[in-house]
Amino acid sequence: MDLAIMGYGVVGSGVARLLEKNYDRIVANSTQPSLRLRYILDLRTFPGDPNEALVTKDFRRIAEDPEVGIVVETMGGLHPAYEFVLQCLEAGKSVVSSNKELVAEKGCDLLRAAEKHNVNFLFEASVGGGIPIIRPMSQCLAANEITEVAGILNGTTNFILTKMIGDGMRFADALRLAQENGYAEKDPTADIEGHDACRKICILAALAFGRHVYPAQVRTEGITRLTPEDAAYADTAGYAIKLLGRAARLPDGRISARVAPGLVPKGSMLAGVNDVFNAILVRGDATGDVMFYGRGAGQWPTASAVVADVIDCAKHMEKKKLLGWEPGDERYVAPPEEDPARYYVRFAGVTQAHRLALLQAFPGAETLRREGAGPDELALLLRTETEDEVRRRIAETGAGLEALIGVYQA
Amino acid sequence: MDLAIMGYGVVGSGVARLLEKNYDRIVANSTQPSLRLRYILDLRTFPGDPNEALVTKDFRRIAEDPEVGIVVETMGGLHPAYEFVLQCLEAGKSVVSSNKELVAEKGCDLLRAAEKHNVNFLFEASVGGGIPIIRPMSQCLAANEITEVAGILNGTTNFILTKMIGDGMRFADALRLAQENGYAEKDPTADIEGHDACRKICILAALAFGRHVYPAQVRTEGITRLTPEDAAYADTAGYAIKLLGRAARLPDGRISARVAPGLVPKGSMLAGVNDVFNAILVRGDATGDVMFYGRGAGQWPTASAVVADVIDCAKHMEKKKLLGWEPGDERYVAPPEEDPARYYVRFAGVTQAHRLALLQAFPGAETLRREGAGPDELALLLRTETEDEVRRRIAETGAGLEALIGVYQA
Repeated sequence: MDLAIMGYGVVGSGVARLLEKNYDRIVANSTQPSLRLRYILDLRTFPGDPNEALVTKDFRRIAEDPEVGIVVETMGGLHPAYEFVLQCLEAGKSVVSSNKELVAEKGCDLLRAAEKHNVNFLFEASVGGGIPIIRPMSQCLAANEITEVAGILNGTTNFILTKMIGDGMRFADALRLAQENGYAEKDPTADIEGHDACRKICILAALAFGRHVYPAQVRTEGITRLTPEDAAYADTAGYAIKLLGRAARLPDGRISARVAPGLVPKGSMLAGVNDVFNAILVRGDATGDVMFYGRGAGQWPTASAVVADVIDCAKHMEKKKLLGWEPGDERYVAPPEEDPARYYVRFAGVTQAHRLALLQAFPGAETLRREGAGPDELALLLRTETEDEVRRRIAETGAGLEALIGVYQA
Repeated sequence: MDLAIMGYGVVGSGVARLLEKNYDRIVANSTQPSLRLRYILDLRTFPGDPNEALVTKDFRRIAEDPEVGIVVETMGGLHPAYEFVLQCLEAGKSVVSSNKELVAEKGCDLLRAAEKHNVNFLFEASVGGGIPIIRPMSQCLAANEITEVAGILNGTTNFILTKMIGDGMRFADALRLAQENGYAEKDPTADIEGHDACRKICILAALAFGRHVYPAQVRTEGITRLTPEDAAYADTAGYAIKLLGRAARLPDGRISARVAPGLVPKGSMLAGVNDVFNAILVRGDATGDVMFYGRGAGQWPTASAVVADVIDCAKHMEKKKLLGWEPGDERYVAPPEEDPARYYVRFAGVTQAHRLALLQAFPGAETLRREGAGPDELALLLRTETEDEVRRRIAETGAGLEALIGVYQA
């Protein structure tokens, strides 16, 4: 059986290296007599690369070669990845993808195409890098009804938050450090604005609850507005701040899904996840809470997840895996305004009148303290309310809202 | 396809309940038209139980019924579980077991029998209860070379240690509380002496490194000798005490494997695992550290893992899974004396002469403090040495050694 890799960047070249390095074990695990890398699709050239001779710019060579049974898609982006993957599936080739944007936007279509052509479409590497999560969720938890999936799904933002909380760094400085360490890209928008985490929670929600969730349906908030002051207030109240992706089943059959910074109680396992590590918590009716932890990105963890999928494809060439979900629905994701939670709120320029009005508007609110707080600063931890209600009452007081962060209810 | 359950205790009856409760989803996931529970093997009677009519004392009815394709073994113990499982496999039936003793002692034999008869022998529930670990290790990590497996493998002892560390309870009181909560059995020996954790690390080591490890080969120490004083010293030095099972590959191809209390740095994820929860850390050359966390025992988590295996068997009736390892070898497990580590040591009845001799014998040792320590008490954190060397030097000083605990090097 021959393989092709589409996209010879960090992950694609890692897959090629890993296939070569562990070739004997991989073939032994695969039930195939051989797994030869035949083509690498990339518009660039790679002079001096050991696989230089395999590089082609012509997608048709892969699509039309009947010897190619498994295609690895590590191009990223939606187009032309979608068209290429679809054509491979239609040509009877199994596809393994690490492309979270592709799966989050087109997963349902591609899984249907795979089913129709009796091949596999696998994407373990699209969520959590080297952490096994797609397969455990779809297989091991088959006997459970999953009620919630939540996690720290983006290593870049978790690194930045770790530096802001641990070392009191400002957001911009922590971002620069992440870029210097190679943890953040030059254009960090997709990470820091939460889009990357959003794609991943869409994929997890689809798997957990059986229906496609589009990124556009999920209210997404990044970490750019967080300050060390918020981290300090959270800390004194016994919480860490994490960027969380969360999806939960509602009693009426809809789901709530959201990406936003959240206050996580320090005693919980999610609070202990630091630096570039990711963690995904799955709550099942029989298992209770199960958590998966590891490096959510990076060349080797991600490549290792891709290769594990390749092995799985090679084991089940004739037999499609039972992985799939229903198309999405406009009304399927409940507006987050309806999701009540405890909220942390911080105000600036607070007068005595504001203070009284706020404490009257939120009876039972806990006033938080931090060292070095200015006299016109106020931070409160509120009782459970919907976000809309919280904002409405704050607006009535006229106080200047600087931060509003939900508390993660573990 | 029909099923049988051997052993209708807590886990076996949980499997029956879960099969019934989630029947539609389970059958949909399985590719079988039906999965009917046909027999329950147990020597007891269960008047009023909904499955009362299925109970039989006669194993042959299961072994000889060609309609029974999958047998669940939740009897526990080595005999007659081994003979029954072997006969089922030889009769062409797949077997799912939650029995860690059986897998740790006879796993290699049973996997070979399964291979020979082209059926499956699966045992996800034998380690980590509801935490998916066997399948992720054998499949998702197929592209990795695993260098180490370590974890908190026993919920009972972790609950006891949590109470000793958090509430300063003595071991005996914490054990009583665990028994009152149903977390410890009347005879808690297998848990508190480390035998249960030992069986689990044997199974994980066999999977990770490809060769059977017998419980008798693994030096095993429980938690009965730990005191709140040790917990307090560890705490002030920045460590939690956990009962750890650990197996690691040595450069010469052998492995080191051990079950013992260990000092775990508070910043590590394992240190945050409290109460009855388990966690297993798998270190791969490509993935780096991956950790799996959840409830390691209990009726529903364990039954859920069994049912996931049942579904997997029902999906792959004709095709055996590639799960297996080589027979064990006497010289395969290195004696733990050869494994150097940092050690925590505590002494009682210490004179000034002892103190001087100890500090001379262990240059660079860190003296630990705790509130309320007596004047003749001494606790040290040593530099890296083998355990033999540490004990030899202590013996020369004549000081009374009360505790010796290794530091877990994350």
